[in-house]
Amino acid sequence: MGWLSDEAGLEKCAANFVPLTPLSHLRRAAEIFAHRTALVWKTTRLNYADYATRVTQLASALAARGVAPGDVVATLLPNIPAQAEAHFGVPACGAVLNTINIRLDADTVAYCFDHAGAKLVLCDTAFLALAEAAIARMEGPAPQIIEVTDHGFTASGRYLGYEDLLAEGRPDFDWLMPEDEWESLAINYTSGTTGKPKGVVYHHRGAYLATTANALAWRMQSFPVVMSIVPLFHCNAWCQAWMVPMMGGTLVCCRDVTAKAIYDAIADEGVTHFGGAPIVLNMIINAKDEDRRDFSHIVEVFTAGAPPPAATLAAVEPLGFNVTQVYGLTETYGPALECLWQTEWESAVGDERAALKARTGVAMAMLEAAGVHDDKDQQIPRDAAHLGEIAMRGNLVMKGYYKNPEATAEAFRGGWFRSGDIAFQHPDGYVKITDRAKDIIISGGENVSSVEVEGILMKHPAVSLCAVVAKPDEKWGEVPCAFVEVKQGLEVTSAELIAHCRSHLAGFKTPKLVIFTELPKTSTGKIQKYELRAVAKLA
Amino acid sequence: MGWLSDEAGLEKCAANFVPLTPLSHLRRAAEIFAHRTALVWKTTRLNYADYATRVTQLASALAARGVAPGDVVATLLPNIPAQAEAHFGVPACGAVLNTINIRLDADTVAYCFDHAGAKLVLCDTAFLALAEAAIARMEGPAPQIIEVTDHGFTASGRYLGYEDLLAEGRPDFDWLMPEDEWESLAINYTSGTTGKPKGVVYHHRGAYLATTANALAWRMQSFPVVMSIVPLFHCNAWCQAWMVPMMGGTLVCCRDVTAKAIYDAIADEGVTHFGGAPIVLNMIINAKDEDRRDFSHIVEVFTAGAPPPAATLAAVEPLGFNVTQVYGLTETYGPALECLWQTEWESAVGDERAALKARTGVAMAMLEAAGVHDDKDQQIPRDAAHLGEIAMRGNLVMKGYYKNPEATAEAFRGGWFRSGDIAFQHPDGYVKITDRAKDIIISGGENVSSVEVEGILMKHPAVSLCAVVAKPDEKWGEVPCAFVEVKQGLEVTSAELIAHCRSHLAGFKTPKLVIFTELPKTSTGKIQKYELRAVAKLA
Repeated sequence: MGWLSDEAGLEKCAANFVPLTPLSHLRRAAEIFAHRTALVWKTTRLNYADYATRVTQLASALAARGVAPGDVVATLLPNIPAQAEAHFGVPACGAVLNTINIRLDADTVAYCFDHAGAKLVLCDTAFLALAEAAIARMEGPAPQIIEVTDHGFTASGRYLGYEDLLAEGRPDFDWLMPEDEWESLAINYTSGTTGKPKGVVYHHRGAYLATTANALAWRMQSFPVVMSIVPLFHCNAWCQAWMVPMMGGTLVCCRDVTAKAIYDAIADEGVTHFGGAPIVLNMIINAKDEDRRDFSHIVEVFTAGAPPPAATLAAVEPLGFNVTQVYGLTETYGPALECLWQTEWESAVGDERAALKARTGVAMAMLEAAGVHDDKDQQIPRDAAHLGEIAMRGNLVMKGYYKNPEATAEAFRGGWFRSGDIAFQHPDGYVKITDRAKDIIISGGENVSSVEVEGILMKHPAVSLCAVVAKPDEKWGEVPCAFVEVKQGLEVTSAELIAHCRSHLAGFKTPKLVIFTELPKTSTGKIQKYELRAVAKLA
Repeated sequence: MGWLSDEAGLEKCAANFVPLTPLSHLRRAAEIFAHRTALVWKTTRLNYADYATRVTQLASALAARGVAPGDVVATLLPNIPAQAEAHFGVPACGAVLNTINIRLDADTVAYCFDHAGAKLVLCDTAFLALAEAAIARMEGPAPQIIEVTDHGFTASGRYLGYEDLLAEGRPDFDWLMPEDEWESLAINYTSGTTGKPKGVVYHHRGAYLATTANALAWRMQSFPVVMSIVPLFHCNAWCQAWMVPMMGGTLVCCRDVTAKAIYDAIADEGVTHFGGAPIVLNMIINAKDEDRRDFSHIVEVFTAGAPPPAATLAAVEPLGFNVTQVYGLTETYGPALECLWQTEWESAVGDERAALKARTGVAMAMLEAAGVHDDKDQQIPRDAAHLGEIAMRGNLVMKGYYKNPEATAEAFRGGWFRSGDIAFQHPDGYVKITDRAKDIIISGGENVSSVEVEGILMKHPAVSLCAVVAKPDEKWGEVPCAFVEVKQGLEVTSAELIAHCRSHLAGFKTPKLVIFTELPKTSTGKIQKYELRAVAKLA
């Protein structure tokens, strides 16, 4: 390959090679953005000099308490400063960060603690009971609890406090930088709806490249103000905590996602970017008048988890939000595809524009390739008709599943990571998800895209939110069943919604049953369809 | 370090690891920007599909003609499409690109051909005589000449034409992607003013990371239109040809840099970005009225080679150009430091603003560290007073010098790349070059910064361009000697300029001699001070 005939003296050395790691971003930011605001949370405002010092003290204190390189440090934290600090402080002592979803049940948290072998857990006061219940259910040695007490909470006093831990650390501690960029940086347990969660392992190289991929796709220039809506325990919030220091930006923390919190952060802190599921957009659209705030800039929103419905886009964009759909999984460090907006689409309006924005997209700059494969692992025709499974390969794909080489090998079969998501591909290469594989409804042998039916339901003026799942049916195998949240102050009947659908959809795609209820959502705002399927089965 | 207790199944594989290479950018662009304009030159307009096909044919044809992986392919080309195509086509067959400066003399070109062992050279019709003269002076086997005939030229007919070479290539040839990102991508010979040129070797990893570093620093969003003013044979034009496809942008070629060509490209092609020495800015400022064109957007300009004088900034920015100084060397893939503009500087005006813009800057995001070291390799105090040598380390530093491990080891002594440039550092970390090491004037034991004296001269209304060098002096060792170009239609005397300097500078910094002449410039617009030193010595 491309080796010169004489490569003497051209080897790697300290001057010309450094393993890629997001730690470098914070180290640089501490130098050149020392005075700039790094983290904002209520009365807490940390500049980069202070942020880096606290990270250093955290790393030092962890090391002093026996956390060794390769050990796992867990967190049970909302998006508060300690969670961001852990993203740097844990790897800075060579340890691996395991941010755990605070909405999980104690059994699952216990499984994560045991499986990862967490040595220590940084736990928010509000989730101490969860941690304690999990520890009580563990099989192996329990992690030491460090209590993080947020503004407005009172420390339990039962554990060493986070600030006291930091006080144990030396501010001149030398970070342990990776010697190999393939070293493990984080483990993220997928919230698998069936079976045990799988521990997705990230390396320093991938997280570093994800920061650049996201900054470029997100149209970031210097000093973005990023509101941390996606939980940092959800694929590390798409690597946001690691990315923001690269741009000298500010991470605005957010414990509870409300329309008021979002509007306030935009108006008061000048938030320029945030990511969130379409449900967050609906929250903004349906905000009470007294919660709305004026602002004059455009907020760049990455949305993921489901395609933004046309009605949502039409309502939210005029409010000052530019919405870009991105697509990815925990296994791809978050976003790996972006619905990259083409210049010639500018003239599209209304439904045409919404249809373009609802495309899943194309590979981000740091993903080597994305395609749609048939069940023989072959690329399907790009004809906007053939369906297949989204497959990706490149440096934005995880190391693998922790202690699960079989699942890793299966996920990487044929040299591609298989997403489990069903899509077609437009002739111009844009992928369009029709459904998560498990969300496809097969009625009378016909595939029904739940997303398509949901899009029609969302166009009804009384529908605030909806989800369509399969209901077992003796005759058809499955039929679509709709769950609907109605807008405050409005009314609609089941028959009206079914008639509305039927006027836009084939009969086999039309829901046979409509259930009015508040939809169960994950901590990341995704609708929990597996719960709805259980309800539909019994309905 | 950060290895988990069980890393089974977490190894690199085809799904989760790809060597970083700028080739990936073009492959992705051919997929998702197929219809977008990639290259513009006179009547030539190539979209990404066609660009990638031509690159594929070039790689295929080179391979068929016996160019093997690791072989060197040279070019003697101005910034025309074939030069951009070579940036991808040569590595796509596993070969290493050696773009040679077309302004070099035949002896030096012969040295480059011999030293690199070039198998083949893509040569513009206008430089065939140079290539032939160089080959006549070679010691080793001569490269095969392929003739590139630009618009407005007539092929000599003596050699295989570039288009005929492409016609030999298969459009379905599989690119040879690097198996290791440390493989060699390019050799760039430095135009050393003393001794033999050194062959700076780039690897795929560094060039890839340079594309991301530059795009972020240059405030690029989708679809930049980049005018190719910096020659692609000058540290590969700061990796511009490799970067533009990552952003789906357009590279506007440019054979001769004139104010008219720049204004036309901005107005007609919508150029959003270009790089160039401060002399290019002066060209824009001093353009004839009939060459100026109106435009309404802001053009983002990277300038390098010398700090932009305050007078230049004051004149050029109101015309619609935002100027950012960047700093680097061939050894750092071009820019590695950027004068990153801080928000709180916005209120600065006039000289204060110019002084901030004249700072050399801070490490770009992909450079691990930049500092200023004393002669004991220690960081100097950041006090805007102590002088030292700019030192850099990280992934934007070259592999080393080809076939010169001694020079490489010396350049990388102590784990840092030493630039040879003298600077101080502000308390906020911003580096400020006072002089290239060889440009410092030592008068009566005092260091005189030629840049400082030049800045004063540039403030005189009659001075269009100037350079100050050391003139040997019996009493003082050296004294400053100024070379000046006067603005058309204006007049000034030597005594007036000396008085002007004396009113702003200490006596020992004031030029003792002023010579009015057109300044000798390199092909990249840098003033050739070594020639002026020769003149000053005899004056």
